Amino acid sequence: MWRARSQGPKEYCGVFGVYGHPEAARLTYYGLYALQHRGQESAGIVTSDGKHLHQKRAMGLVPDIFSERDLKGLKGHIANGHVRYSTTGSSVLGNAQPFIINYAGHGLCVGHNGNLVNAHELRRHLEKEGSIFQTSMDSEVVMHLLARNIHMGFEEALVSSLSQLRGAYSFLFMTEDTLVAARDPQGFRPLCLGALGDAYVVASETCALDLIDARFIREVEPGEVVFIDKNGLRSIKPFTRQRHAHCIFEFIYFARPDSYIFGQTVYSVRRRQGAQLAEEFPHPDADLVMPFPDSGNYAALGYACAAGLPFEMGMIRNHYVGRTFIQPSQDMRDFGVRVKLNPVRELIKGKKVVIVEDSIIRGTTTMARVQNIRNVGAAEVHMVVSCPPHRFPCHYGIDFSTKGELIACNHKVEEIRNLLGLDSLGYLSIEGLLESTSASRQGFCLACFDGEYPVPVDENAGKFCLEC
Amino acid sequence: MWRARSQGPKEYCGVFGVYGHPEAARLTYYGLYALQHRGQESAGIVTSDGKHLHQKRAMGLVPDIFSERDLKGLKGHIANGHVRYSTTGSSVLGNAQPFIINYAGHGLCVGHNGNLVNAHELRRHLEKEGSIFQTSMDSEVVMHLLARNIHMGFEEALVSSLSQLRGAYSFLFMTEDTLVAARDPQGFRPLCLGALGDAYVVASETCALDLIDARFIREVEPGEVVFIDKNGLRSIKPFTRQRHAHCIFEFIYFARPDSYIFGQTVYSVRRRQGAQLAEEFPHPDADLVMPFPDSGNYAALGYACAAGLPFEMGMIRNHYVGRTFIQPSQDMRDFGVRVKLNPVRELIKGKKVVIVEDSIIRGTTTMARVQNIRNVGAAEVHMVVSCPPHRFPCHYGIDFSTKGELIACNHKVEEIRNLLGLDSLGYLSIEGLLESTSASRQGFCLACFDGEYPVPVDENAGKFCLEC
Amino acid sequence: MWRARSQGPKEYCGVFGVYGHPEAARLTYYGLYALQHRGQESAGIVTSDGKHLHQKRAMGLVPDIFSERDLKGLKGHIANGHVRYSTTGSSVLGNAQPFIINYAGHGLCVGHNGNLVNAHELRRHLEKEGSIFQTSMDSEVVMHLLARNIHMGFEEALVSSLSQLRGAYSFLFMTEDTLVAARDPQGFRPLCLGALGDAYVVASETCALDLIDARFIREVEPGEVVFIDKNGLRSIKPFTRQRHAHCIFEFIYFARPDSYIFGQTVYSVRRRQGAQLAEEFPHPDADLVMPFPDSGNYAALGYACAAGLPFEMGMIRNHYVGRTFIQPSQDMRDFGVRVKLNPVRELIKGKKVVIVEDSIIRGTTTMARVQNIRNVGAAEVHMVVSCPPHRFPCHYGIDFSTKGELIACNHKVEEIRNLLGLDSLGYLSIEGLLESTSASRQGFCLACFDGEYPVPVDENAGKFCLEC
Amino acid sequence: MWRARSQGPKEYCGVFGVYGHPEAARLTYYGLYALQHRGQESAGIVTSDGKHLHQKRAMGLVPDIFSERDLKGLKGHIANGHVRYSTTGSSVLGNAQPFIINYAGHGLCVGHNGNLVNAHELRRHLEKEGSIFQTSMDSEVVMHLLARNIHMGFEEALVSSLSQLRGAYSFLFMTEDTLVAARDPQGFRPLCLGALGDAYVVASETCALDLIDARFIREVEPGEVVFIDKNGLRSIKPFTRQRHAHCIFEFIYFARPDSYIFGQTVYSVRRRQGAQLAEEFPHPDADLVMPFPDSGNYAALGYACAAGLPFEMGMIRNHYVGRTFIQPSQDMRDFGVRVKLNPVRELIKGKKVVIVEDSIIRGTTTMARVQNIRNVGAAEVHMVVSCPPHRFPCHYGIDFSTKGELIACNHKVEEIRNLLGLDSLGYLSIEGLLESTSASRQGFCLACFDGEYPVPVDENAGKFCLEC
Repeated sequence: MWRARSQGPKEYCGVFGVYGHPEAARLTYYGLYALQHRGQESAGIVTSDGKHLHQKRAMGLVPDIFSERDLKGLKGHIANGHVRYSTTGSSVLGNAQPFIINYAGHGLCVGHNGNLVNAHELRRHLEKEGSIFQTSMDSEVVMHLLARNIHMGFEEALVSSLSQLRGAYSFLFMTEDTLVAARDPQGFRPLCLGALGDAYVVASETCALDLIDARFIREVEPGEVVFIDKNGLRSIKPFTRQRHAHCIFEFIYFARPDSYIFGQTVYSVRRRQGAQLAEEFPHPDADLVMPFPDSGNYAALGYACAAGLPFEMGMIRNHYVGRTFIQPSQDMRDFGVRVKLNPVRELIKGKKVVIVEDSIIRGTTTMARVQNIRNVGAAEVHMVVSCPPHRFPCHYGIDFSTKGELIACNHKVEEIRNLLGLDSLGYLSIEGLLESTSASRQGFCLACFDGEYPVPVDENAGKFCLEC
Repeated sequence: MWRARSQGPKEYCGVFGVYGHPEAARLTYYGLYALQHRGQESAGIVTSDGKHLHQKRAMGLVPDIFSERDLKGLKGHIANGHVRYSTTGSSVLGNAQPFIINYAGHGLCVGHNGNLVNAHELRRHLEKEGSIFQTSMDSEVVMHLLARNIHMGFEEALVSSLSQLRGAYSFLFMTEDTLVAARDPQGFRPLCLGALGDAYVVASETCALDLIDARFIREVEPGEVVFIDKNGLRSIKPFTRQRHAHCIFEFIYFARPDSYIFGQTVYSVRRRQGAQLAEEFPHPDADLVMPFPDSGNYAALGYACAAGLPFEMGMIRNHYVGRTFIQPSQDMRDFGVRVKLNPVRELIKGKKVVIVEDSIIRGTTTMARVQNIRNVGAAEVHMVVSCPPHRFPCHYGIDFSTKGELIACNHKVEEIRNLLGLDSLGYLSIEGLLESTSASRQGFCLACFDGEYPVPVDENAGKFCLEC
Repeated sequence: MWRARSQGPKEYCGVFGVYGHPEAARLTYYGLYALQHRGQESAGIVTSDGKHLHQKRAMGLVPDIFSERDLKGLKGHIANGHVRYSTTGSSVLGNAQPFIINYAGHGLCVGHNGNLVNAHELRRHLEKEGSIFQTSMDSEVVMHLLARNIHMGFEEALVSSLSQLRGAYSFLFMTEDTLVAARDPQGFRPLCLGALGDAYVVASETCALDLIDARFIREVEPGEVVFIDKNGLRSIKPFTRQRHAHCIFEFIYFARPDSYIFGQTVYSVRRRQGAQLAEEFPHPDADLVMPFPDSGNYAALGYACAAGLPFEMGMIRNHYVGRTFIQPSQDMRDFGVRVKLNPVRELIKGKKVVIVEDSIIRGTTTMARVQNIRNVGAAEVHMVVSCPPHRFPCHYGIDFSTKGELIACNHKVEEIRNLLGLDSLGYLSIEGLLESTSASRQGFCLACFDGEYPVPVDENAGKFCLEC
Repeated sequence: MWRARSQGPKEYCGVFGVYGHPEAARLTYYGLYALQHRGQESAGIVTSDGKHLHQKRAMGLVPDIFSERDLKGLKGHIANGHVRYSTTGSSVLGNAQPFIINYAGHGLCVGHNGNLVNAHELRRHLEKEGSIFQTSMDSEVVMHLLARNIHMGFEEALVSSLSQLRGAYSFLFMTEDTLVAARDPQGFRPLCLGALGDAYVVASETCALDLIDARFIREVEPGEVVFIDKNGLRSIKPFTRQRHAHCIFEFIYFARPDSYIFGQTVYSVRRRQGAQLAEEFPHPDADLVMPFPDSGNYAALGYACAAGLPFEMGMIRNHYVGRTFIQPSQDMRDFGVRVKLNPVRELIKGKKVVIVEDSIIRGTTTMARVQNIRNVGAAEVHMVVSCPPHRFPCHYGIDFSTKGELIACNHKVEEIRNLLGLDSLGYLSIEGLLESTSASRQGFCLACFDGEYPVPVDENAGKFCLEC
């Protein structure tokens, strides 16, 4: 089966919450719909009517999971929603989020975007003291820490529990009467605040605010914990200030182009990546510039514009390809590629084309697509990539597949060019990439390119192995 | 919607386990099928292949839940199965059993038949110490006790945990390599051991052994804990010996007539109840004796035989009535009764009939059935019931509905006769009932008839209220 | 998979219709529910609101097919319902009935119980003239005849079309404003009329009238065509009078015991069959008489009563066995039998038992059941059967399986006794059988016993072979 | 609910067939997948193994309908597939195609793209002669004509039947051993021939050939009937030659941009439409040119390139929007538009934008989108449309909604500009449109723009009204 983007890096998670709206569940449903690109494996909404929590979580896409009846049953003015692609924990319903517990008569739930690097160690310790874990998710650890600290009071317990965590987290907690947004001190993952009338909204990306016509207020700051309850919004910054480490891959591939994250509009950053590529890898004799749609569209526009070359949609997307379908037999060469994108023969035949790609992870899909372009008779095929080669795994919430599968991990650029069957191949430099963000190197996590991990990791940790 | 037996007392649970058979899951599937009368709300099977646990649990009936593919996926030579009708905990999937936890890298699961009377109190204590409960089932308490005691070693921890429990339990535990059957010291619920070739089988009733052609070995004794592993079967009796308190209602209604429990064949006990009734309430002028099929069949045979009266199947069951169907409009009087049983007009018209019923709980169904018999022209309608009036709720695992709904709780026998529209009504005496079991009063729990609870209960406990 | 009664002769069809009730679809739903024993493969309801027809047909059981929403959508005061087990045509949705056509702007539908013996010949002729058949059902022929004759007017066309048919039919036709019941001149299959307030009801058996509390008026007579419309009920008898040929197997096995058909109550006829058997095959030394429940119950009661022997329910039915479940592995001997019926060991061990069976078709199930009785230690096992040996196939709507599979076709009674592992075996004589009906030989079709077919058949016809 | 393209003109149908390949069903599955844009309501595949036809038809999208098991069951080397959006007949399963009949022991099926204008009249006549219609589709008429003519032999009967039809048809017939492609004499709808090894392929558009890597041979010519059987391909042209009337709207909107139809690549035609628009409606001061993706992409590229203006993807598509989801409450203004396309605020704010749209049918979606652009602060919003105003309904297979709903039917261009809230609005001229096709006016049907219907129609015909 193929699904949209299935061959690219796996996305991690998105969170969306509402406080103070009579249709909290419905708004959250739309918010999750807008964040679907951040997780297609499972989704969940938990609401509170002030007294009880109500929930629905299931495997699948947001519109397939929730019915009108579900939304009606999710009563209350507070909601906490989540879309998930697992980076830790297995792909089972029990691991769908928000994760909900009943503790001494009270309900508490959490949705998590990011990955904790010391979850395994914390869990081992808690289990030794008699805690029973329900899931294999790293996110469950914070709930057990909370349960053991709750005698301090909720806010104290929360700060104390968060202090023990290391790694990436944009958390959305909800009790019967409070919504809490918390972002790790490095600010790995985006998280923003919005308003809709008197209601507050929290979302991973601004595109979710746009869909429900909410007003963007500001981003939640790294290290900030925001409490929203009947007294309004209250913010604390209980942690020592640390250097920021925004995930630069959000700008390159993950975030939606219409979102505003880390202080910038993603579309514009990607367009500048293209312009930067035109400077680093000019192809003055080319006949046309084309993207592999849709992720390469914006850098390709930037390249074509900066280079003064014609921009063409040389490959046509099949609009229905997101749906699972039956595998073809082995002898249908490159079928998986063709079913998603079909080249326009007349446009490409005999031409020198420059393809703009956002990234190359394993290289297998790119190879087949290039072959497809060659098959319809391109004279020359050049490729420029809007980021440096991926050489290191991510430990903060992105699944690039294991290190051994990263093509740039085992091959030099010239070898990759040869493997992909290209006439030339250019990767954007780290400097060029930073230039495109108009921000300093210090603000970003570039670990997947340079291996410098801003928060130390135990490389053997892997995913949890306690599956049921 | 109506379901078979839906108007009678609710059944509680059945357990079935296998150790040492390559088709453990499949045998358990059939075992649960034979025990379906003990719980129709949800079912589950957990298996172990020696290293990992595999599970499938769902709402619904056994044949609707498990597919061939499920059984193939439930790998291993050990299996622990459960059918459930909730007596504590709400009717949600999370409460389906066997209940499974992953603890420090190991899997452990439990199925439970019965009801613990001090579960609420134990839970409150555990939560105060930081334990997070996943369900609203009383059975979860024993797992948290185990987790906190596990440093003692499994057997020690198990005995220590069971010692803290009060009430009714026939437990079936399973780890990666061991199956454990444990029965409370009073022996409220049945539990038996069987063998199939080299494999061991544990089941709530012997009818489940019959279906898979297993040999009956013996009943698990009250207060006995049986460990079955690669070294065979090992039994301990770690608890102080107490008087037995077998649930007499198993003999009257719950257990299948072809099962052998508490040392007797249920069919024969029921037949003797009928004979006893013929002695206590003779109707020498009656034209015929008839049951409300199928639960009244056996006592009716006993009555007719002892009284020398013709036995007739005066009401015909609809074979398809177990299936849910659409409610008729309000004006279709007694429809719910007719859809299940239709009287044979020619047989009943103008006759004096003696109806033998196993028990009268709320009385509403009985009332409609009697009316139905009257409608086709019976001359006289007498009823004899094969147990005394139900006046007290059960706290050990049977749901007679709340005390206020027991018809005998608020009405004398003469009033009940009048409400049901009968010419006469006779309830079997406690002495007659005990006589039919051929056993002493000391061996049984008769609390639902006489209010003498063998294990003290806090009457305010009710079901857990912590629902998710 | 096993389904209730699956090993017995296959039932054919049931029809149920209502004229003049605002809840016609709902009443029909219940009527079909009561007739479910006549066909479990598919069901359908077509209603008319006076202007348009509305329909729902599907594979499966009545309660599984229709939802509340379906019934609401089936608008109108006239309804025509059908349950089906295919005797001609394949088991596909397209063959579900009532069969509906749109003809020149008008809707017309038909439900059929019975089998036409000249359908193949009529179809061949119609196709030659350009008619396109939609299904492989014999019932479709009558619609094409109607379409070609309709210029005569509806009643003329109907009579003309029916005149061309040979074989068994209880038809229920419906147009936008009329319900028509038609029974073949021999009266093979039952059909009755009832009333519910001002509404008329037509049903295959009276048990369907009972369920909706309708009053029984009379049976539709052989060769009668009854038109029900806004002017009330009008009857014609357009065909030459012929000798009657009621299917005697309705009395033996098919019809529900609480139904009144062919002028008698089925329960009483079956009880008399038992009494007749006691006369033909006495077993004065037997310890007990028992049926294979439920179909053998009534003759067994008759036998026990006439013989003065104890009647026992020696085999216990599993209440959930109607549901499909997963096949056991090959080595589970007689599993299919045990899952349906489990013998009560204590009752049978060391006893001389007389089993009363309604019929033996292929003998395989009976053989396994007898073995099962032997396995629990019966001293002697005798069997009496409440009809003569089945030696000939039915061509009028019952599927006894092909001639070669009828055990009595290839074996003498003594051989059958031996094959089934019985100490003795007695079949009711044809005279005894007729005696039990209190009617003359001339009124019944006994073709399955004596091969004398009241309407000549082409033995090579078989089912239609034009499957899609 | 929204579905991709749901607000645009409804597409009609696509056909795809294979002769001579062992995996005919699987290839057809992929072919239909590539043609999904031509019909999303139902789909079907019928195959022949030389002796029997096998079929699967259902409501829904191709990947949702067919399972691996279905494809395995669709045995044979010949296949006939169809995707459908109904232009005649109701949206019910019975109307899914290919339409299959069994006639005198033989199977025959047909898939149809187009609409017959004299179907109603032909049907009335056939019914008068006793034919019974199964569906409300115009396509069924041809089958009844065939059945009545079949005595002439198949080819004769086919030609004779086709001769009686008027209107648009690209038919794909299949018998047990032959595949037949037939295109009406005007050539309204596209149809092409391809080859895959020794197998022949027939498809509505070449994009379906590309997906399975088949080689394009040529288009089926208007008025041509192609027989493909074990003797290879044989073509006849039995009809009088008539002027061609290719549907120009295939070039504007319907066909996929990567397809080659009516002698041209759709992408190039659309790009030329954009260039033509730049000539007719220049906007030299504009800051950027943007499409409403994806249908406007290609003309927008053509406009931007010809005008020397920057092309931007100013609205971002939600990748998951094809899926049905729950309606928002009424007060969420323009939600339906935002959920599909979200404007990039930073790009549009303060800019003069030229939007290129392919067509405006009812105008409601366009109005909301323009408002959306205005909401994020565009300084000026101009729109150019790559076809003339739609003023007339289509009778040859496209559903523009009824005449009254066409915005250009009741409003002048200036009024439309005002209604849509635009600063300027330009529709491509008929001459400009024809220029973009590089073909003469005589070759196309322009009826939706100029009302000159190449085949006379009875405007009152509408859809068939004989629904079941």
